[in-house]
Amino acid sequence: MNSLQALWAAGSIAVIGATERPGAMGRLPIDYLQKYGYQGFIAPVNPKGGEVLGLRVFPSMASIERPVDLALVMVPAAAVLEAVTDCAQAGTSVCIVMSSGFAETGAAGASVQAELVRVARAHGMRLVGPNCIGAVGGPARVLATFSPVFSSTTTPIPAGNIALVSQSGALGFGALSLGIERGVPIGIAVTTGNEADVTAVDVAVQLVSDPTVDAVLIYIESLGEINSLAHAAALKPIAVVKAGRSEAGAKAAASHTGALASADKVVDAALRQAGIARVADIDALLDAGALFATGARMPGRRIGIVTTSGGSGILAADAIAACGMQIAELDDATIVELSAVVPSYGNATNPVDVTAAVMAEPGLFERCVDRLAADPGVDAIVACFAVLVGDDVTRIARALGAVRTRTGLPVVAVRTGAASLAPEGAALLAANGVPVYPTPERAVAALQALSATSMRRDREVIAGPLAPAPGAGASEKQVKVILADAGLPVPSSELIGSVAAAVDAVSRFGGVAVFKAVVPGLVHKSDAGGVVLGVTAETAAEVFTRLSALGGQVLAERFVRGGVEAIVGITASALGPVLTVGVGGVLTEIVADAAVRLLPVDEIDVREMIAETALAPMLAGARGAAPADIDALVRAVGRVADCTREWPTGFERDINPITVLADGCWILDAMYFGASTGDQLQQAGRH
Amino acid sequence: MNSLQALWAAGSIAVIGATERPGAMGRLPIDYLQKYGYQGFIAPVNPKGGEVLGLRVFPSMASIERPVDLALVMVPAAAVLEAVTDCAQAGTSVCIVMSSGFAETGAAGASVQAELVRVARAHGMRLVGPNCIGAVGGPARVLATFSPVFSSTTTPIPAGNIALVSQSGALGFGALSLGIERGVPIGIAVTTGNEADVTAVDVAVQLVSDPTVDAVLIYIESLGEINSLAHAAALKPIAVVKAGRSEAGAKAAASHTGALASADKVVDAALRQAGIARVADIDALLDAGALFATGARMPGRRIGIVTTSGGSGILAADAIAACGMQIAELDDATIVELSAVVPSYGNATNPVDVTAAVMAEPGLFERCVDRLAADPGVDAIVACFAVLVGDDVTRIARALGAVRTRTGLPVVAVRTGAASLAPEGAALLAANGVPVYPTPERAVAALQALSATSMRRDREVIAGPLAPAPGAGASEKQVKVILADAGLPVPSSELIGSVAAAVDAVSRFGGVAVFKAVVPGLVHKSDAGGVVLGVTAETAAEVFTRLSALGGQVLAERFVRGGVEAIVGITASALGPVLTVGVGGVLTEIVADAAVRLLPVDEIDVREMIAETALAPMLAGARGAAPADIDALVRAVGRVADCTREWPTGFERDINPITVLADGCWILDAMYFGASTGDQLQQAGRH
Repeated sequence: MNSLQALWAAGSIAVIGATERPGAMGRLPIDYLQKYGYQGFIAPVNPKGGEVLGLRVFPSMASIERPVDLALVMVPAAAVLEAVTDCAQAGTSVCIVMSSGFAETGAAGASVQAELVRVARAHGMRLVGPNCIGAVGGPARVLATFSPVFSSTTTPIPAGNIALVSQSGALGFGALSLGIERGVPIGIAVTTGNEADVTAVDVAVQLVSDPTVDAVLIYIESLGEINSLAHAAALKPIAVVKAGRSEAGAKAAASHTGALASADKVVDAALRQAGIARVADIDALLDAGALFATGARMPGRRIGIVTTSGGSGILAADAIAACGMQIAELDDATIVELSAVVPSYGNATNPVDVTAAVMAEPGLFERCVDRLAADPGVDAIVACFAVLVGDDVTRIARALGAVRTRTGLPVVAVRTGAASLAPEGAALLAANGVPVYPTPERAVAALQALSATSMRRDREVIAGPLAPAPGAGASEKQVKVILADAGLPVPSSELIGSVAAAVDAVSRFGGVAVFKAVVPGLVHKSDAGGVVLGVTAETAAEVFTRLSALGGQVLAERFVRGGVEAIVGITASALGPVLTVGVGGVLTEIVADAAVRLLPVDEIDVREMIAETALAPMLAGARGAAPADIDALVRAVGRVADCTREWPTGFERDINPITVLADGCWILDAMYFGASTGDQLQQAGRH
Repeated sequence: MNSLQALWAAGSIAVIGATERPGAMGRLPIDYLQKYGYQGFIAPVNPKGGEVLGLRVFPSMASIERPVDLALVMVPAAAVLEAVTDCAQAGTSVCIVMSSGFAETGAAGASVQAELVRVARAHGMRLVGPNCIGAVGGPARVLATFSPVFSSTTTPIPAGNIALVSQSGALGFGALSLGIERGVPIGIAVTTGNEADVTAVDVAVQLVSDPTVDAVLIYIESLGEINSLAHAAALKPIAVVKAGRSEAGAKAAASHTGALASADKVVDAALRQAGIARVADIDALLDAGALFATGARMPGRRIGIVTTSGGSGILAADAIAACGMQIAELDDATIVELSAVVPSYGNATNPVDVTAAVMAEPGLFERCVDRLAADPGVDAIVACFAVLVGDDVTRIARALGAVRTRTGLPVVAVRTGAASLAPEGAALLAANGVPVYPTPERAVAALQALSATSMRRDREVIAGPLAPAPGAGASEKQVKVILADAGLPVPSSELIGSVAAAVDAVSRFGGVAVFKAVVPGLVHKSDAGGVVLGVTAETAAEVFTRLSALGGQVLAERFVRGGVEAIVGITASALGPVLTVGVGGVLTEIVADAAVRLLPVDEIDVREMIAETALAPMLAGARGAAPADIDALVRAVGRVADCTREWPTGFERDINPITVLADGCWILDAMYFGASTGDQLQQAGRH
């Protein structure tokens, strides 16, 4: 057994801190293991000895004299290090520390927590927690928890093909309990708490390789790595609730792109690129799980709607439009056939409204669902029947199940009404692979999650020649030379050292040029008056003298007129280098709608990024202007990301603006600076 | 009895199309009325006579020979006009036409529907429907519906202090059924269908004057009037699901402001200004109803959180930040006192995390809730206890109820876990005035709805002197003269007719001026090269000649340099004149985040509008620029809205840009045109 598998497949479990005292936490796991029929070996451990619930108590892990797959540490914080050491030395595979009082309390606790990890790693033991509520489930019926959920006589043993991993213990078991109530087949649940050693991502990676698990639901508060989770998501659908959105915006930014690429936006992009569904809340997480459990995939976004209630159909359409899914456009043939069966006071286009006529005309709903499913433009079906009861529901449930089975399309039902109106309805639908939701919005959100996990694609990442990294503190001119040598479009320029050279340069650039002050630490050159466009032979001397007075060098550059200005940035993040593309120039902060992606990206990514921002309408040619050369921008962005890919992390690349003309684009400004330099720049007077 | 009251208080009900045949729609209302114990007089009507469910059948309404409060028309569409006429002539108060086959089927159906209304109005009868599913509830136990919800033995009689009105019949009864299942005390439900005569708004207005109703929930697909609903909302809380968001954006626009003020955005603004909560879906509508039912009000946005699960606390904080509510900042004294009781591994600031320690330490949760409620910075409390069971829940339920009663603060509970873990929990909480939600997001959304209905304010609308309306086809110059005469800041300008006058004008304006082509139908002057800034004595002749060639007059104007450009527009909408404020000039379409409000507005509204848009950071002085004179802009916007308030509707006012300087602001362009003119302009090449 892989060691983490012990969390749901342990053949032997020790409970350190076991006690006979009713109500004590150290008694609960033993109580639960017995109550739910765990078939393995249970070893209560307590130096006081005696018996717990009829089982002999071992004074220590060493005294058990057989390997233990899983040890639960349930002693006060002060005694945890000794207990963990005892487990590690006894060769335990996995140790769950449920006790609180570690990194979450401050530096002293963090220090002890680090020592726990050191001891565990020294002996090859994995450590889950501390400050968690354990794990439950699996065919072995592992009840390695003190959660009160299992003190209730109404809670069944978790069973099903979905797994749940939660960094939060209480919320994780709460979600499990809610999932059980709603019929979401969660068979395994693991909580990871402080994640001193084992993270929720580690557990998810192990879970997707388990044959009893078909999909994984995750609640996390921090996402420190994405690559292994992305590999897991390539195997089985994963949905995530990532908490802490609101704090993300508070992080101070060291450059334009850093400021735009807020941490939460990076998380969004990382999950999306990995084909992982990010969902809004625990309701949506469980809703996605119910759909994942059916085994359906949805490599498309086009949704067909059949409804008995016009209102539900409109709400479904609103929800589809709001979340970026598509209302399927039906074939003419489909509409003709639907028109023949749908009442005149209904609607034979999508959303298809069969009206309350279904109550009088059995079979109407089924015929419409069948016809919709046969349309090649439909990737999934939402079936809304608000208040049908009894046989009407049974018949529809069978019909939806038949379509699901025959076509393989995802089919979800919306039943806005009490379950008691057709008590067997939900179960029958679930048995037929059709999850049921109370509102159209929730059904559509579940399909969106499924689609997000089904539309992952492999990227054809260009890997062209590398450009050499500039030295720390490289000037605009130096960075531009490197980019130009890498094949990027940079207007010719030269540093000028005298009035005569200034006049000379203007002439060489065709009679008009741009002059820029090149002053270390001056980031917003334009705002400081350090950029002068349209310098002519007449004004060259005056402008040169003025810019020289700013304290640095002066760069003369060929003048590129007009165009749509974009920003392209590459910054570091906890999840890897982040590419930012957005509206550039002086609009950058006003528009502030840059798109971000983790690197590497391919051309499709870059086109999607442009489409997400206000660049799209600007490039398309607002107000009758000629369209700009979007292909040139896409190539340039891809090449920047590609040729700088091995530049040191921690140094930001900030190209702003790159101006896009009707034919081609030009990098007008480029900066390269380390994060610490950026901080200094900020202190030196940046906004 | 006011006639619409008959929908929930009828003393006599006739069912036209009554039949004994089991399963037939015409039998169901009689069945339901008897089953649920209606105490009034039931009159089955059918020319065939006989008996239905033991009641004598009348051949016609006239034959009943006593006044009927409420008649249900359940005959085929072709027979409806005759039935309605029969009702009207017999002096019926309200007639509900449930039959389908009218306006929803096309022009012929619409024509018959109009005839129904004509007949009803001629006799002073109100007509509900057609194409609806009737009404239920009230102390009289009116079951005027064929909804299958009441065919189930599990559906209790609707009871409670909340009323539900739904334009959609099936969705309305579905929501009612779901609400009953969830314990939302809906005592009255009315569906309005095609709304030929009576609208959902009419019903809501009647409902708020009913003493048994404390709040109203509404599902609507069209909102044609807002004023009477606003008056109703001033009396009792109202929450609305408005469907059809996604179609709104498709409406073609005739001017910048028309394009930005999409119909759905206007609905949003109208509801918000009226103090009506617009909620996302039926879940949120019922969630709001559960909170409204407690009688709580929330004239603030600051939410205190107490949680047993750190994860739930973070999710609550995220939800609060995402929806514009505020995470309460606690007093130092509160934090000191909380620190004394919250475990070190918890959190004594907001969100207050008491951790699973509550299981071992009864009273901890209560103490924290008490302390939080005593903080003057807290407007409402969210209490999250994910997976507590049994006595723990009972104790907390009592404590929350006590705080609710003692302080009057809204208190909501989040219980992410199966109801079966503490079956009495939800009922006990509800009895104590504390609604329970499964996720923090839904609890926060309910508080947001309550806050929206509690923060309505009366506007101190300025009503200064009116400006005369320009004639149709008025030129920029003419509109500007009117605005200047109304006290608005307009740069001096003059029409020039010759090269000599052009040179002269530049000199009078201080050596530099703006020249503009004044060409009827030319809306985007700048794009067409019709605006030239910085005209000097040297260039005046050339510019004048060039602009003259565009085919109209040339206007010379004092040159106002720099500033932040805003757009101010007033357009017509189905709900009344709409004010738009946003980023102006060439950025208008790129930024596209204008704020809208129905007129009239006051200064607070205008400041809020500015704060909602990218104007706010621009006016504050981006990148170290001096702050612009926001007060001047606020005054100008208010004055524009005020002095044009009696200008003909259907004519748009479009001021773009008004430029805001460090001291004062100036209207640089102003247009006035009728909608039809706008259409022509659009056809003439505007995008």
